[in-house]
Amino acid sequence: MEQIQDTIQRRAGEVEEIICKWLPEETGLQHTVLEAMNYSVLAGGKRLRPMLMQEVYRMFGGTGREIEPLMAAIEMIHTYSLVHDDLPAMDNDEYRRGRKTTHAVYGEAMGILAGDGLLNLAWETAMQAFSLDEQDGGEPGEEAARLGRIAKAVKVLARKAGVYGMIGGQTADIEAEEARQVTMEQLLFIHEHKTAALIQASMMVGAILAGADESHVRQMEKCAYDIGIAFQIQDDILDITGSMEELGKPIGSDEKNHKQTYVTIRGLEDSAAEVERLSREAMEILSSVEGDSSFLQALTEYLIHRRK
Amino acid sequence: MEQIQDTIQRRAGEVEEIICKWLPEETGLQHTVLEAMNYSVLAGGKRLRPMLMQEVYRMFGGTGREIEPLMAAIEMIHTYSLVHDDLPAMDNDEYRRGRKTTHAVYGEAMGILAGDGLLNLAWETAMQAFSLDEQDGGEPGEEAARLGRIAKAVKVLARKAGVYGMIGGQTADIEAEEARQVTMEQLLFIHEHKTAALIQASMMVGAILAGADESHVRQMEKCAYDIGIAFQIQDDILDITGSMEELGKPIGSDEKNHKQTYVTIRGLEDSAAEVERLSREAMEILSSVEGDSSFLQALTEYLIHRRK
Repeated sequence: MEQIQDTIQRRAGEVEEIICKWLPEETGLQHTVLEAMNYSVLAGGKRLRPMLMQEVYRMFGGTGREIEPLMAAIEMIHTYSLVHDDLPAMDNDEYRRGRKTTHAVYGEAMGILAGDGLLNLAWETAMQAFSLDEQDGGEPGEEAARLGRIAKAVKVLARKAGVYGMIGGQTADIEAEEARQVTMEQLLFIHEHKTAALIQASMMVGAILAGADESHVRQMEKCAYDIGIAFQIQDDILDITGSMEELGKPIGSDEKNHKQTYVTIRGLEDSAAEVERLSREAMEILSSVEGDSSFLQALTEYLIHRRK
Repeated sequence: MEQIQDTIQRRAGEVEEIICKWLPEETGLQHTVLEAMNYSVLAGGKRLRPMLMQEVYRMFGGTGREIEPLMAAIEMIHTYSLVHDDLPAMDNDEYRRGRKTTHAVYGEAMGILAGDGLLNLAWETAMQAFSLDEQDGGEPGEEAARLGRIAKAVKVLARKAGVYGMIGGQTADIEAEEARQVTMEQLLFIHEHKTAALIQASMMVGAILAGADESHVRQMEKCAYDIGIAFQIQDDILDITGSMEELGKPIGSDEKNHKQTYVTIRGLEDSAAEVERLSREAMEILSSVEGDSSFLQALTEYLIHRRK
């Protein structure tokens, strides 16, 4: 377990270096929003989504630089969603990972604008993939295929990030919280969209850019679904079984907030069994792919079975 | 004057029909955010930006459908910026164009998510341009050129909408308001970015998609700058000279709010002269283009010299 943690940490550092290349310089009359954006992205985190994207790209034989702006873009999207989630009108969080949230430092208006700025910069950055790896003197047919692949990848990212993906999940989550009750159907919708959708985008974009065929892209979508839902259920399990010290938040905070989760509805035993089933399915998909999936398998194993 | 107003209204209706084709159906567990998004877009407005985009596209000989998702995208971007601007932490407006603002109807959390949803849907929609007007059996070189044009157009839109465009202008505006003073340099930065940038994007995207050369794209950028700044100064002039009945807001509201504008800094006479100069320059650029610019000229004339 320690070995994979070290590897993840090293890889997170490498991924962060790539992301940093696409962050804005803090100059100009709009420097405050740029500072707030960089503050938000550089608040830490596992860089899980770009890491998965890069690793799937490699597994399917990708070697170009075109993946890099997409890696930065998905981290910007993930970050903007946290910045807006933390706002007083949403979850109203002053701290995240032991650090003041963006609006707590820069004020609420700048928190809104920094989120908007990151979401827009994500697309501005993603579009840069079109200008990288251009084949000077290559076949026009190859160039059209390359541009088509990038367009398809950006489309998938946009769909999974939007109202049919992550934002859709956030909406359902807020409404369930306001209603103070949630059905299993709603809960799975929320987890699939709020949590799994961006993981799906990561793995699908990696596959598409590497030129994987449609059936492989669909397999990655399924695998990412399994990882995302298992990760979320594990989170709910840890909320109950984890200790204050390990989690950095009160034990059973969901229960104390009367928040219904997979575990409060199905119980600990069934939830753990579901995590196992999803984990097995994800592993089977990964090991069925021809390329080297060893790090992806170790990462999945770690994410799903983590103890904190 | 009345004739052009009728023409603009008819064209706005045609543009709105195109935009509506790209709006989401209000179904699914995320239906509330979809309702809030449609409510925001369908709140009316002159549809100026997509109208300019379509007209410039036609002027440069564009005839395809690829312009339509970009028209919808820029209106979604314009709309999300209004939705977030109206939020309590920003301008705190309960009404816009005599109608309740989005957060006033759907609550603050849904106002934030509806804005995010529209911004993301703008990119999702823009990316659809890649799948329209595909040339079955065409030359691969032509297909690569088509994809390249769309990528360039989407890039320009992203740049002008983001932290180096509109969001940059919103940031500088908020900071100037908090400081309760503004220099002429800041004021022009705010107008160029907050107001002119999306007009620039409209006209540049129209030119790029129609296949106009780089020098024509730059001319459209300059022309749109002139229109945007002149429009904004005219707004400031009307704030002082307009009557309550015509504007629907108190006379001199800027002055009453101690808001410094181009007019409060330079005076009415110099401001009117600057509007004339910018207007003349924009007209000269439009009439220098080979295509039919008659509607664009009439529209510019109307926008800049409107009395309300």
